[in-house]
Amino acid sequence: MADDTTANSLITRFKFQKLLNTTQQGCRIILQGTISDKPALLLAERGAFSTDNAYLQSFSRLMSHVKNLGENDIYRWCLANSMSENTVDEPTPADLKINLIYPCTEKHIRKYSFQQARVVLETPSIYSTYIRPYMQLCREEGRLNWVFNILDGKAEQENVLFRSKEAKADDDFLLLPDLNWDRKTLSSLHLLALVQRRDIWSVRDLKKSHVPWLRHLRSTLAATTTTLYPGGEVETDMLKFYIHYQPTYYHFHIHIVHVNTEASGTQAVGKALGLDHVISQLENLAGGAEAGMHQVELSYTLGENSELWQQVFAPLKEGKTPAVAGE
Amino acid sequence: MADDTTANSLITRFKFQKLLNTTQQGCRIILQGTISDKPALLLAERGAFSTDNAYLQSFSRLMSHVKNLGENDIYRWCLANSMSENTVDEPTPADLKINLIYPCTEKHIRKYSFQQARVVLETPSIYSTYIRPYMQLCREEGRLNWVFNILDGKAEQENVLFRSKEAKADDDFLLLPDLNWDRKTLSSLHLLALVQRRDIWSVRDLKKSHVPWLRHLRSTLAATTTTLYPGGEVETDMLKFYIHYQPTYYHFHIHIVHVNTEASGTQAVGKALGLDHVISQLENLAGGAEAGMHQVELSYTLGENSELWQQVFAPLKEGKTPAVAGE
Repeated sequence: MADDTTANSLITRFKFQKLLNTTQQGCRIILQGTISDKPALLLAERGAFSTDNAYLQSFSRLMSHVKNLGENDIYRWCLANSMSENTVDEPTPADLKINLIYPCTEKHIRKYSFQQARVVLETPSIYSTYIRPYMQLCREEGRLNWVFNILDGKAEQENVLFRSKEAKADDDFLLLPDLNWDRKTLSSLHLLALVQRRDIWSVRDLKKSHVPWLRHLRSTLAATTTTLYPGGEVETDMLKFYIHYQPTYYHFHIHIVHVNTEASGTQAVGKALGLDHVISQLENLAGGAEAGMHQVELSYTLGENSELWQQVFAPLKEGKTPAVAGE
Repeated sequence: MADDTTANSLITRFKFQKLLNTTQQGCRIILQGTISDKPALLLAERGAFSTDNAYLQSFSRLMSHVKNLGENDIYRWCLANSMSENTVDEPTPADLKINLIYPCTEKHIRKYSFQQARVVLETPSIYSTYIRPYMQLCREEGRLNWVFNILDGKAEQENVLFRSKEAKADDDFLLLPDLNWDRKTLSSLHLLALVQRRDIWSVRDLKKSHVPWLRHLRSTLAATTTTLYPGGEVETDMLKFYIHYQPTYYHFHIHIVHVNTEASGTQAVGKALGLDHVISQLENLAGGAEAGMHQVELSYTLGENSELWQQVFAPLKEGKTPAVAGE
């Protein structure tokens, strides 16, 4: 038995010593221990649910030890165990979090339904022919008014954490908390830097000539952020800088997050470009000062329900000409 | 009973109709159904593990139905059920993914312990003076033997999903499942493409002259992956390609993930570079065929316990000369 090195036997003989770390919001634990007096690590992670129809049919019946946590109108939330009622006297800790919406509406169903994402490759030509005109339409429709109101000091001034006063007004920027940050947990700090100038709609407008400005901006943002949150929890080398492409709105802004923030889709390939990477890319670009990000390919993900998928990339995939016309 | 609106009673009466969505790598399911003929949504999510000491003490003993998925040297991975052996005849689907590292080293323990991350900027000069020699040391120490064993057909051949036969042997690659993929949930598909050639240690070795090869590789990988998983769940525009820098091992490999995979740190700015972005960057680089990624700045995050932080970036931060000497 002592020589049995099957996973099953080894795991059974694992003697726990110490919890090394928990990640994935507690759904992964890393245990340090020993097997036959030799050091071992056991990494356990909650597995995916089976999506087998028979399992899903019986899923709600097989749950046990449902413990109500709260309810509000049609919303209820509770903890439960994923095993049938009569198998254990002493339940193991709850391994399920349940939300119940009852009765629910069509809108709930749409909201929670799956939307397929697609990876698209935006060539320089697709950018100039379809995407740039689309951006212009978005700007003309007034979708940026809320941003301009903040820049002009007409709205949300209570949210402005910092407003720079650079020698050149074109270099100025504002710092705001991201909508999804709780504004207090420094380990998940998430700020937005909005540039004051209005001629840069997105990363696509960055040119080689902007490199000194971008470097200055990056170091000023790092220094400003650490000054805003003194106490040592936010140091300049604990900050990550990235840009979204496609962004939610077409006024150039930079995301600043704490490295300890659990990285999610907002920081991922297909959505985010590292600011340092972009600066270095610009600096090493073939061509003169006017060479820029408009001339490179960028790929990203789009939901099939998004305007850009429906108006540009779905038609292109079908060999049709998108309706968002160039000027 | 029909009027009982406790969460427990409502859940018991939930009649499953349709799986609306799965998120969080399959660890959250959203079920559409009815309760007393009225529409309802049931959202179930795997809960965080208890970090109670008594629970962790008994954790490995309470596991059952351990199913071996594979092993290589000191690494074993399996699926299991988080309940004790004798409670059920018919096991419910496995709800745990387990990785066992045995015997493990101090380095494994450091790697998996919580540690502060730092953002570092690797300039071309830091790369050539310190990082490149460090990479060479890692390769000389034999840390890549497991990769070469796979490439040479000496180990893990049962895990090789595809081995290409290109006209030029230098163009060949292997496809493997990533260690963290459960090997069945297509929406969280995660493959690794290992190139057969051994002269590319990392993204830093990619040059402008590699662009046609990289484009060919990308399209071949996309086509191969969709062929491996026919049935429509994996289409070419449902795949994201990225490269880690720093990678875990210095043999060039590409990560391929399904867009539906919930993005985590492995895809995040500071760790991952989009393959399409890198290809486009190379293509537009100033200079001739030999211009390459060795000449650009790359920033990334490092744990304070990592060798690179301790041997290179911490000394540099303190104004000292790192001990990893160039040749």
